[in-house]
Amino acid sequence: MNGNELLTLAGRLATQEISADEFLQLAAKEVGQPEYATVDLARAQRCGFPEVIFGEGKTAEIISEIAARLLADDQRMLATRIDPEKAALLAAEFPAARYNETSRTLRVDPTSDSRESIGHVAVITAGTSDLPVAEEARETLDWMGVRATMVHDVGVAGPHRLPERLAEFAEADALVVVAGMEGALASVVGGYVSCPVFAVPTSVGYGANLGGLSALLAMLNSCASNVAVVNINAGFKAGYLAGLVATRRSR
Amino acid sequence: MNGNELLTLAGRLATQEISADEFLQLAAKEVGQPEYATVDLARAQRCGFPEVIFGEGKTAEIISEIAARLLADDQRMLATRIDPEKAALLAAEFPAARYNETSRTLRVDPTSDSRESIGHVAVITAGTSDLPVAEEARETLDWMGVRATMVHDVGVAGPHRLPERLAEFAEADALVVVAGMEGALASVVGGYVSCPVFAVPTSVGYGANLGGLSALLAMLNSCASNVAVVNINAGFKAGYLAGLVATRRSR
Amino acid sequence: MNGNELLTLAGRLATQEISADEFLQLAAKEVGQPEYATVDLARAQRCGFPEVIFGEGKTAEIISEIAARLLADDQRMLATRIDPEKAALLAAEFPAARYNETSRTLRVDPTSDSRESIGHVAVITAGTSDLPVAEEARETLDWMGVRATMVHDVGVAGPHRLPERLAEFAEADALVVVAGMEGALASVVGGYVSCPVFAVPTSVGYGANLGGLSALLAMLNSCASNVAVVNINAGFKAGYLAGLVATRRSR
Amino acid sequence: MNGNELLTLAGRLATQEISADEFLQLAAKEVGQPEYATVDLARAQRCGFPEVIFGEGKTAEIISEIAARLLADDQRMLATRIDPEKAALLAAEFPAARYNETSRTLRVDPTSDSRESIGHVAVITAGTSDLPVAEEARETLDWMGVRATMVHDVGVAGPHRLPERLAEFAEADALVVVAGMEGALASVVGGYVSCPVFAVPTSVGYGANLGGLSALLAMLNSCASNVAVVNINAGFKAGYLAGLVATRRSR
Amino acid sequence: MNGNELLTLAGRLATQEISADEFLQLAAKEVGQPEYATVDLARAQRCGFPEVIFGEGKTAEIISEIAARLLADDQRMLATRIDPEKAALLAAEFPAARYNETSRTLRVDPTSDSRESIGHVAVITAGTSDLPVAEEARETLDWMGVRATMVHDVGVAGPHRLPERLAEFAEADALVVVAGMEGALASVVGGYVSCPVFAVPTSVGYGANLGGLSALLAMLNSCASNVAVVNINAGFKAGYLAGLVATRRSR
Amino acid sequence: MNGNELLTLAGRLATQEISADEFLQLAAKEVGQPEYATVDLARAQRCGFPEVIFGEGKTAEIISEIAARLLADDQRMLATRIDPEKAALLAAEFPAARYNETSRTLRVDPTSDSRESIGHVAVITAGTSDLPVAEEARETLDWMGVRATMVHDVGVAGPHRLPERLAEFAEADALVVVAGMEGALASVVGGYVSCPVFAVPTSVGYGANLGGLSALLAMLNSCASNVAVVNINAGFKAGYLAGLVATRRSR
Amino acid sequence: MNGNELLTLAGRLATQEISADEFLQLAAKEVGQPEYATVDLARAQRCGFPEVIFGEGKTAEIISEIAARLLADDQRMLATRIDPEKAALLAAEFPAARYNETSRTLRVDPTSDSRESIGHVAVITAGTSDLPVAEEARETLDWMGVRATMVHDVGVAGPHRLPERLAEFAEADALVVVAGMEGALASVVGGYVSCPVFAVPTSVGYGANLGGLSALLAMLNSCASNVAVVNINAGFKAGYLAGLVATRRSR
Amino acid sequence: MNGNELLTLAGRLATQEISADEFLQLAAKEVGQPEYATVDLARAQRCGFPEVIFGEGKTAEIISEIAARLLADDQRMLATRIDPEKAALLAAEFPAARYNETSRTLRVDPTSDSRESIGHVAVITAGTSDLPVAEEARETLDWMGVRATMVHDVGVAGPHRLPERLAEFAEADALVVVAGMEGALASVVGGYVSCPVFAVPTSVGYGANLGGLSALLAMLNSCASNVAVVNINAGFKAGYLAGLVATRRSR
Repeated sequence: MNGNELLTLAGRLATQEISADEFLQLAAKEVGQPEYATVDLARAQRCGFPEVIFGEGKTAEIISEIAARLLADDQRMLATRIDPEKAALLAAEFPAARYNETSRTLRVDPTSDSRESIGHVAVITAGTSDLPVAEEARETLDWMGVRATMVHDVGVAGPHRLPERLAEFAEADALVVVAGMEGALASVVGGYVSCPVFAVPTSVGYGANLGGLSALLAMLNSCASNVAVVNINAGFKAGYLAGLVATRRSR
Repeated sequence: MNGNELLTLAGRLATQEISADEFLQLAAKEVGQPEYATVDLARAQRCGFPEVIFGEGKTAEIISEIAARLLADDQRMLATRIDPEKAALLAAEFPAARYNETSRTLRVDPTSDSRESIGHVAVITAGTSDLPVAEEARETLDWMGVRATMVHDVGVAGPHRLPERLAEFAEADALVVVAGMEGALASVVGGYVSCPVFAVPTSVGYGANLGGLSALLAMLNSCASNVAVVNINAGFKAGYLAGLVATRRSR
Repeated sequence: MNGNELLTLAGRLATQEISADEFLQLAAKEVGQPEYATVDLARAQRCGFPEVIFGEGKTAEIISEIAARLLADDQRMLATRIDPEKAALLAAEFPAARYNETSRTLRVDPTSDSRESIGHVAVITAGTSDLPVAEEARETLDWMGVRATMVHDVGVAGPHRLPERLAEFAEADALVVVAGMEGALASVVGGYVSCPVFAVPTSVGYGANLGGLSALLAMLNSCASNVAVVNINAGFKAGYLAGLVATRRSR
Repeated sequence: MNGNELLTLAGRLATQEISADEFLQLAAKEVGQPEYATVDLARAQRCGFPEVIFGEGKTAEIISEIAARLLADDQRMLATRIDPEKAALLAAEFPAARYNETSRTLRVDPTSDSRESIGHVAVITAGTSDLPVAEEARETLDWMGVRATMVHDVGVAGPHRLPERLAEFAEADALVVVAGMEGALASVVGGYVSCPVFAVPTSVGYGANLGGLSALLAMLNSCASNVAVVNINAGFKAGYLAGLVATRRSR
Repeated sequence: MNGNELLTLAGRLATQEISADEFLQLAAKEVGQPEYATVDLARAQRCGFPEVIFGEGKTAEIISEIAARLLADDQRMLATRIDPEKAALLAAEFPAARYNETSRTLRVDPTSDSRESIGHVAVITAGTSDLPVAEEARETLDWMGVRATMVHDVGVAGPHRLPERLAEFAEADALVVVAGMEGALASVVGGYVSCPVFAVPTSVGYGANLGGLSALLAMLNSCASNVAVVNINAGFKAGYLAGLVATRRSR
Repeated sequence: MNGNELLTLAGRLATQEISADEFLQLAAKEVGQPEYATVDLARAQRCGFPEVIFGEGKTAEIISEIAARLLADDQRMLATRIDPEKAALLAAEFPAARYNETSRTLRVDPTSDSRESIGHVAVITAGTSDLPVAEEARETLDWMGVRATMVHDVGVAGPHRLPERLAEFAEADALVVVAGMEGALASVVGGYVSCPVFAVPTSVGYGANLGGLSALLAMLNSCASNVAVVNINAGFKAGYLAGLVATRRSR
Repeated sequence: MNGNELLTLAGRLATQEISADEFLQLAAKEVGQPEYATVDLARAQRCGFPEVIFGEGKTAEIISEIAARLLADDQRMLATRIDPEKAALLAAEFPAARYNETSRTLRVDPTSDSRESIGHVAVITAGTSDLPVAEEARETLDWMGVRATMVHDVGVAGPHRLPERLAEFAEADALVVVAGMEGALASVVGGYVSCPVFAVPTSVGYGANLGGLSALLAMLNSCASNVAVVNINAGFKAGYLAGLVATRRSR
Repeated sequence: MNGNELLTLAGRLATQEISADEFLQLAAKEVGQPEYATVDLARAQRCGFPEVIFGEGKTAEIISEIAARLLADDQRMLATRIDPEKAALLAAEFPAARYNETSRTLRVDPTSDSRESIGHVAVITAGTSDLPVAEEARETLDWMGVRATMVHDVGVAGPHRLPERLAEFAEADALVVVAGMEGALASVVGGYVSCPVFAVPTSVGYGANLGGLSALLAMLNSCASNVAVVNINAGFKAGYLAGLVATRRSR
């Protein structure tokens, strides 16, 4: 690409005629840049579930291409961290796509309605701001075919709230606990149950919450023996791990 | 929600016809998403004061709903971290609401003018930039019915300023000290008085202030025995704690 | 001091005939080093309670000297962070001294038995390893003349333990909560009561507990509004603050 | 306790006639200090397995007392972080105790030989220095009645070693991966299997390993979806979580 | 410059008629501010390759001036961290310039097509998001005259991908490994080869990736002996170091 | 202020008719909020130089008010961290004001041209991006009446550059060294001279520069005995300290 | 192992008749614990040099076993981090072993005297305390058959020292720079040469050196393009990398 | 050195017949290890004062050798961080040596009594535990020939103490402020004076003092313009910098 072509494209970028993403893709095409992403179609076989698309940092075009290959291979598709703009573009291409605005996940999952659900996982949140992360876990469980129950807004500042709802998760195969701030809910929940608890620290809070590191550290130091931890805001990972436990029983 | 509906909403978001918050709420309604927030009406009984609404990360609609329930139960309402836009929306719904632009707090507190104040707390700041956090503490104290005195801009770089104003807080039941940068004011104040001091580190400063962590650490290491610490910028918490001490005496 | 004298002393140090502390004091005396510590006798007047001796890094001799001056002025003496060796030395000089081996505090407090206790503070621990820090708080409260109740080993991993004992601290003027690991107990306790909670993170735990920093951060981010925090293992400070609240009512 | 008694005990401590632990216990007895530890006998019912004793910071005497109560209730006993000296003392009291020198765990587990094992967990280590942590996990699994396979010294620096041993853990219900330094083994193992992986960072390494924090961070950021993390050196916790997954299937 | 002139310029800045950069340059010219940058023309002699322009924080005008001096001295020019807008401005001045949109590098390198390439370096990425950093390394190698091979998207979550492509870098003189998240790829690659590996941590990831610090720490703790590390996202530096190794053989 | 008034103002803010600053000030006036800033006119007497205005976080209106009081008292005015927009507003009020666009400082200093300069300080930078911080130091020195020499772009990557310019600062009373990235320049300069060196770390760099913390730590660990350190980007402080040393000689 | 046996062994440990290492090994043997370490004999083929034994955390017995296998396969042996006690034990078994007390390395390297050296690497230290780390690098180079030159004590506080010795490393194939405190030497050396520089931060220093982290961060942010970094005190790794570059030329 | 010799030496080390230092030196001599330390005799000329010996990590033998060379060149000798054992050894060789047990400094300074002192520096401490660091500063000033005043134990917890002693340092050329815990004293002192303040954070404190980092951060963020900072516990550096300012006036 010579300087003149660049000037034209950069001009369109400067006038906001095209977005930075579009700029990058147009420029990439023109110089014949080869494709970079590869799809791991064998993962469903090797790991039990198809590859999941992490949408952050990928253009709608790339996501669309990966999705197309998964669907062509009859695999169900789940994409996480999809913002509404990308979702709109993808929905235009995949009319069967369902987008969850809260969790920012997009699924094309033709057989989901006819599948019978396996096992049971409860997703528990400390406060309303933890909802997007919890929804990402719930969507993941749904995509895996696991029955998911939501228990919301039972943080420890109102200590009567959690015991009232014990019955909803006493028989679950695994729990996902989503909490920011001091992350104490994971330990409290862990003390009530006999199944594994996958704790997700969130970046909810301010000041010394250090973007979620404080909750993360608290959860790692939980005095409850059955609490394992995943990355900050990693709703998908916690849902996936809980789903693996829940589906394992049926094997 | 199918792809077409999403496209329409996302388009309105893209053209900034609706905000991200509105987008989320409209989408949530359409899919019949149940409400998530619960109001802890028993807190006034259990903890002495009604639940306070932490406004960050909540939409005006959710805040409005919680406020309505509190008021319906004849409880006084305090909401913190309310930006001017949300305040305007809420003021339209609650004509009796009073918004403090500096502290970004909103109150609907019908009996505040007729209440007699209890106890005395002084709120002391190091510099003018610490004002918003100090005002959040002051509003909280006012809402609790505690007399609050403000002593501003008495940071240690001008060492004569604090002693001149000792008389204003010598008889207080508790103090709130708000300071950023090196946070030295908390220790200095602590040395002069016999009551508890609740220190609030602020994110005021630059470079190695680490967003307020440096002041926080300094306050935790205070050589004064009567200094307790709350989170960075947590004006509400410090005001609330000081208010608990001040109102305790009248029980 | 010339080289020869040094040789003799260093030789005695090398053969462990004298300790490092003794070495330092002998050497200091010989060169006529003036005394450094000053006693703030006016503190009892200014701050309500006498100066407390922080024993770490001070020799038994210096502690003894400060203690003597306080007692000569008819003030009650409390020294913290006193190891058993120093305690034995001090007990020899002050036969009325009482040493608490767990809290490592030493008191000479002639009027303690005849004083009537004022107010009520409960000191609550998560686990048995938190005991030394809790005892430091309790001793401090006792020295202040405040009635102190101990509620031990009620960490959140056994969630039924705390509610069973609510009655013991429901009417307290202030609480001290001592916890290591994830420090969740402070938030849980805070949700149950209407009085100020002074949370003390301890260094109990391992790995990512970061010597108590994880518990400290969790407590600072507590979702309960009535939780203030002091330094890691700072049992004295928390006890002192709670005692200020409790004694305040009687003024 | 008056000063004279203290002098005697401290003298015995100073001459190393008694240890610091013994000193503390003797002193505590003399002053009639009540017992602090409580045993959560209901945990086996509530959480599926009896309470486990965390030995660090507890004297042999306290451990012995808790153990006695568990055994009297016909529960199997597992104590972790027991150093050889404490183990010798406890072995004298519980002749049926079995001590593992590498993992520093002690068990009194009368029915262990007659129990049939349930499920299968593989414990995988990166290097020989990770062995003590891995053994703690293995002992825990054995105590839970789960069959545990050990796959040692398959760190990524020798990339051919892991694939050669895939067959040994391909069918496991869950994996425990123990690794220090850069902790890469967890991600590599995670990519090969379809079951949950519980990753334990160890403090093995030097310099920028930050006592295990570097491995911990790496594991939390694992690109493999099935990797959950526990605290540094927390072999017990990882073993317990994996054991919960393995025993779940048989319910 | 008096206040009036400032008002005019600031007005143009406020109305976005001119950018902040332009504002600064116009103002600087008016007040006769001397030039600050000096060009190290002797570096090609001293260090083997000409000075490279680090574009971040430099205006297009300054970059243009340095470039002109290098070209006037018959040295090949490489500028890194050039955003599209600056690239467009520079392309207008240097028609022979070639801009790489992905790596954000700009080169004016008249002899590049006629040079014969020396040595061989492979640049290996863990995922598609690591591409921009890898491209910066590849452009640097190309500018140095070294043959560069790209091996993309072979992260450890798909463990079969790397071995399949070993042949492409088995004979390389040095490797550049670009990876974010847990950065495990550097260790795995290091175990397969006998040449130096220059590892570049990237800021790809979220939460506890700490902006790339987690990958950086992992790479520094690599158990492979042949892994050296450069700064986060420092594609240029890794490419340059690998290029020094590759060109060294031909001396 | 009632809800209606708020609505109007918030509406003007929403439509960007007024800025957030203006909003705050208008609202503050309406509710009769008292002024908060106080001017320390006695500082010139006590500390040798008048109070300097730290402009960050202060509105133009507040800065203007402080400036007016200083000038009314015949003191020279220096304001730092003034962005161009505020500068334009202030220039309109103080026609004698001189604004430095690079250092973002504003001065009203009537006697500066007629003052004779005292002492000599050299300000040395590692690279062109360190210029704004260096200029802040230079403006401060000029305001103090100290002769300031600039030595630019002599970072250690070009090791011949510094020795060539030694003569320019060999006789200085004090030095200010401004450097980002690894901050090595401070140590190298310190080794050449016999006067105090005030080192200013800057946030110049990327990745593991941690926003200037890496340079700060390096400077604190300098092996040169004559290097003292100030906060990140604190050009004013370094200039002020160097100026105190330089003006001291003339007393 | 039953309790009685444990008592005996623990008794011998308690009386210091046997060391902790010996205790562990005796206990391990008795219970028939299988061997854990495996030797990667194929590494010499795959990676160019035999496996190197990292001695820290390994008993003399294990090291001896690995060494024996390497020597039986006619491979030269290098062990790092060997303390004098272990060295004495190993020297008794391998009479041909040569121990370097400063670097704490042990070699059995029969052909080292008859080998012709290949290439040239200079190892440069900032101060005398960096010597042990530098010697580890030198021993590694010697074991690889590379000529190694030492340039000691040329830290930047004495800026004339380095230029005087440039001739000694101007023609080297690669450099190893070993420095603690602010680590500035790596950048300064990097600016003088055209070959790769492998920088080793050391833990030399105090206070804010953070155990070597400050030097590590400085080196990662080096403004010199040819500086790569290894872990703190990782003399072996830097020597090995430099040796790979030096031996590469002769292939 | 062959294995047998090593065995003998290691045996003596094991039986504690010789120390680790002696072991190292004996071993080093035997293998003919060349000397490493060089003395920078030109520093007195270049930097105004002779080189100072940093004793930590150096054997008494090496210190002795450097000292001998300085004295042979008629330069006054100062060595810091000398523990009593080394001091005894050195005192035997240099009968004129004076050792300060508190500051752990050793001087051989023949002309110190006959020199007239120049300038005036006050060294101010917050508490008695800060004394060793303050004494290091005072010894350094004395060695430089500067009059040093000590103002002890004036920490901010007793706010009346500092103002009472202002007269003692109001006219000083520079101040050294030594403080641990929250380090607030530096800012308070800075507000009272017009000269430069060199602040030394100390590691005095516990818990969240982070070994002195909290005080260091507080001092770097000081709101007083005249506060510069040195490394934790760096009494020498602060004394040296203050001495440079004080001696400068007399030039």
